[in-house]
Amino acid sequence: MHIEQAAEAELREQLATLHDQYDQLAARGLSLDLTRGKPGAAQLALSDALDGILAGNYRAADGTDTRNYGGLDGLPEARALFGGILGTAPEETLVGGSSSLTLMYQVMEFALREGLRGAETAWSNAEEVRFLCPVPGYDRHFSICEYLGIEMVPVRLLETGPDMDQIESLVAADPDIKGIWCVPRFSNPTGCVYSSNTVERMARLPKLASGQFIVMWDNAYAVHQLYADAAPLDCLSDYARQFDTMDGIFQFGSTSKVTFAGAGVAFVGSSERNLSTLKAHLAFQTIGPDKVNQLRHVRFLQDGATVAAHMERHAALLHPRFEAVLDTLERELGATGMGSWTQPRGGYFVSFDALPGLASEIVELAARVGVKLTPAGATFPYGKDPEDRNIRLAPSFPALEDVQACAEVFALCVKIASIKQRLSA
Amino acid sequence: MHIEQAAEAELREQLATLHDQYDQLAARGLSLDLTRGKPGAAQLALSDALDGILAGNYRAADGTDTRNYGGLDGLPEARALFGGILGTAPEETLVGGSSSLTLMYQVMEFALREGLRGAETAWSNAEEVRFLCPVPGYDRHFSICEYLGIEMVPVRLLETGPDMDQIESLVAADPDIKGIWCVPRFSNPTGCVYSSNTVERMARLPKLASGQFIVMWDNAYAVHQLYADAAPLDCLSDYARQFDTMDGIFQFGSTSKVTFAGAGVAFVGSSERNLSTLKAHLAFQTIGPDKVNQLRHVRFLQDGATVAAHMERHAALLHPRFEAVLDTLERELGATGMGSWTQPRGGYFVSFDALPGLASEIVELAARVGVKLTPAGATFPYGKDPEDRNIRLAPSFPALEDVQACAEVFALCVKIASIKQRLSA
Repeated sequence: MHIEQAAEAELREQLATLHDQYDQLAARGLSLDLTRGKPGAAQLALSDALDGILAGNYRAADGTDTRNYGGLDGLPEARALFGGILGTAPEETLVGGSSSLTLMYQVMEFALREGLRGAETAWSNAEEVRFLCPVPGYDRHFSICEYLGIEMVPVRLLETGPDMDQIESLVAADPDIKGIWCVPRFSNPTGCVYSSNTVERMARLPKLASGQFIVMWDNAYAVHQLYADAAPLDCLSDYARQFDTMDGIFQFGSTSKVTFAGAGVAFVGSSERNLSTLKAHLAFQTIGPDKVNQLRHVRFLQDGATVAAHMERHAALLHPRFEAVLDTLERELGATGMGSWTQPRGGYFVSFDALPGLASEIVELAARVGVKLTPAGATFPYGKDPEDRNIRLAPSFPALEDVQACAEVFALCVKIASIKQRLSA
Repeated sequence: MHIEQAAEAELREQLATLHDQYDQLAARGLSLDLTRGKPGAAQLALSDALDGILAGNYRAADGTDTRNYGGLDGLPEARALFGGILGTAPEETLVGGSSSLTLMYQVMEFALREGLRGAETAWSNAEEVRFLCPVPGYDRHFSICEYLGIEMVPVRLLETGPDMDQIESLVAADPDIKGIWCVPRFSNPTGCVYSSNTVERMARLPKLASGQFIVMWDNAYAVHQLYADAAPLDCLSDYARQFDTMDGIFQFGSTSKVTFAGAGVAFVGSSERNLSTLKAHLAFQTIGPDKVNQLRHVRFLQDGATVAAHMERHAALLHPRFEAVLDTLERELGATGMGSWTQPRGGYFVSFDALPGLASEIVELAARVGVKLTPAGATFPYGKDPEDRNIRLAPSFPALEDVQACAEVFALCVKIASIKQRLSA
């Protein structure tokens, strides 16, 4: 049944059946949560060997005693390993504490308040500061902007990444736009991978060399493919070196979804000049990061091949959860005209677009029968989805049977909301 | 020989001998460092059991999976253990990452820019913001003020702690003074322990209840006594509860000098109201601290008695290093009138006061023969010791024979500088 082709009577009948199913669900007293991109317990257990891996040897390769103070840059071997993931040289890579969000916040705050090229370049010298936000996107990027008083300018996210035509004309027209947030591989929430053309054009945006426009490249899912056929991501640094724009890009990553979430290692890659500026600021608030945890991670993850093999084990655990969602959506909503959704080949999310105006209602319907979804609007700046249609589904954490139950509840709620809307049109 | 009683000829003869000794030292090509309060390798090894202590059990007492996201407050058992050190209840204690300096920076920045009681209470609303700094003190406290543009007002540090008479009149007279830095037990660098009277008066300062004056109580050496007869510190929270001023105090600590320096666990204690404000800000820059490391620390340090026994093992390793310094100073400089120094019963430093005007010269003389000392002035705001006399000695890190060598070089440099000054007077 396609919603636009069905007769009113058919829709009414269908709605009555759906309401019955909904009432039965309500009686079951579910308490399920499909909101956050958290690894499941079995995924976390893949890294249990981290604790104890040092076997009493706390010395880094260069003899550094990781148990003592010092080293704002992070351990050399950690800079090499994680720089390898970002595509930056060890000396272009700073390895910090456990949170890449913290590193992103610090870069944004320093650029705003202190200036990446001295006080006269602080963005806060201008009356207005704006930042480009591909939508749908990651709520915690938006929160940083909101907290720092940076106005957000949404740009369209396409299958190939953010709409570069739109970005190029916005940047050319508005000197107060100081940068852009990107999740270039398996974008949160759509799962898209930026195309070569997008990456290349991002690296040659006009003001990158001046430090008056920066690309915040949150490569959170750099190695998080679910399937071997997932698209690779071109290396931003390669282009940036070609165009001499390394001073305008900041790349981020962490092992939160490789080893332990919130207890891994975070890193930032940029030009040596930018890292030197960043360190000058960081030195006022820390003596250095937890190098013991860095050493554990290097001993455990070793090199790119070991990381890739480890990520395959993650993928094997995630497959059934993603398939439960995608199969259910296809079975229940395929060819109904009630929504469209992404088919991610990596990352942590499925992005669902309902019919315009229905996302909030669907989330509320699900909540009333005990299924918690990411709040409607969360994937947009200021929490406001202008079309009220995008919902982020995060199937990684719950048990498989719970993911299955959530997906079914979700599809039911989509159908109820869609048919009700159609009938009242 | 007392410098003020010696005849000129005697001094000249003495100086010639000292110069000979100095030249011989120079020829030895020493490369020693007595600058930072870093634990020595044997101290760090006391905590080697940390790695592997979880033995595969990553669950906190309440069932929390420490390997996953969440929990800005820190683990309940970590809040209980470290709150016990600060004298705050678990709900008045937030356990963060590995750096207490970071927590201090965050509190200062939030109070300055965002306001502890809403935007209208942000210190930055005023033209001038000042902070009291007992001197000599800790350079990284001063750096935070300098970085944030907060003017520092030095106050005298006595044997009993900061001069409370001076503080009370400064606070009464100047509304732009927004707080004070304190290292209340084994103060950096003098080693003094604040008296009961000081602690009580600190907790009843007039504006504490309003949030317009805060006490930054950096209890970095709370459990770091070197000798069993070391003075205890009264509990600031006990007084603050009595005077209803918990909203005005922030207490800090870390395990950097209990377990691993820079790879331990840091904590802050304050009123529940303050912690709730702090968390609202922190949520923009992190999803939560490394709970795995917190769990390791709780399993390893267990309770107050275990911590105390562990700290006795640290003290046993530190005793000979402190005694090498103190015995050498006494033997070489005792009753010479060339300086005075503290006799710390805990902490990491010996504070030396040379004759006025000589600290920079002594540090330079030592540097020229390969002994690095903390820069003269580092213990004062803006790096400027108005009398140029204080030098901080940090004997914990070097091997015992190196500490001994440093102390002898130091005493020699003090003598040369002092006699030269006397002869040119």
